[in-house]
Amino acid sequence: MHASSDTLSSVHIFGGLTREEATAVWHTVVQKRFDAGSRILEEGDNVQALWIILEGECVVTRDCGNGHRRELARLGPGDVFGEMSFVQTAPHSASIDAVTEVFTAAWRREDFQKLTEKNPRAGFRIVSNIAAVLAERIRRMDQWVCDLMDHPGTETHRDEWENFRAAVYTNWQF
Amino acid sequence: MHASSDTLSSVHIFGGLTREEATAVWHTVVQKRFDAGSRILEEGDNVQALWIILEGECVVTRDCGNGHRRELARLGPGDVFGEMSFVQTAPHSASIDAVTEVFTAAWRREDFQKLTEKNPRAGFRIVSNIAAVLAERIRRMDQWVCDLMDHPGTETHRDEWENFRAAVYTNWQF
Repeated sequence: MHASSDTLSSVHIFGGLTREEATAVWHTVVQKRFDAGSRILEEGDNVQALWIILEGECVVTRDCGNGHRRELARLGPGDVFGEMSFVQTAPHSASIDAVTEVFTAAWRREDFQKLTEKNPRAGFRIVSNIAAVLAERIRRMDQWVCDLMDHPGTETHRDEWENFRAAVYTNWQF
Repeated sequence: MHASSDTLSSVHIFGGLTREEATAVWHTVVQKRFDAGSRILEEGDNVQALWIILEGECVVTRDCGNGHRRELARLGPGDVFGEMSFVQTAPHSASIDAVTEVFTAAWRREDFQKLTEKNPRAGFRIVSNIAAVLAERIRRMDQWVCDLMDHPGTETHRDEWENFRAAVYTNWQF
């Protein structure tokens, strides 16, 4: 497993960092190896960190409340997870398991905060990249649900959705 | 209409700013008055700014593609709009109209950038506040759609939703 600060430069979240900033981040990430089949992150955990997959394949699953786990996505090298709890203190909403042998780099929130104190410009850049992705995610989810509501059979949910959306977009102090 | 930098301190997005930082922001916002019934922001516009409602009531509407406008939300003093396009260059996804006489303070993206160059810590704080709200919005939308999918009649959309969600959560380079 050969990884360096150049690995970070190819990760979208670290876009716009100077070489020095990427190196500073790289020096504080913790690299770890996971056996195939092992759990990397548990739904409900409160760990605040940003994980970057360096090598291998992971599966994202979630307990949708009805007992059995659902597969949400597969992740590979260069993919990131943990970004939602990284910007907001909240339990992780999904579990991550290693499908193959997996190498990750984890960047703890406290190390991010230390970097930001010394170099607020880098912190600003990283959190701006995350915010832009989250905004685009909301746009797409919103459009998807709008389209769904135009399907026959979902008419009964339309008002419910509109009330929900009004609440979720106007509440700034969850 | 009496507003000052203290007005900003009560707005969630500006939480954590020092008094000096809030004052610096306040000196660059542009205050504007709108007649009842006038349009403040047009869906599709590319203006990058953050609006704070100082006084009055606004309505958020959207053309859902089928010709007639839908009301999404009502906003009042202390509410904010424009935050999605503020963190990501994209056309506004809704229109904002003044219901009563409205006073707003608009903070242009370019003034935000100037502040951030001089004071990256303040920029970091503001964009972190926005990112945390966006993350919470996604969690709630996600949970809402999950719950919807558990209703009878939406079974046919479940796979579609899961494919969509897998794509939207793993794409970091929209």
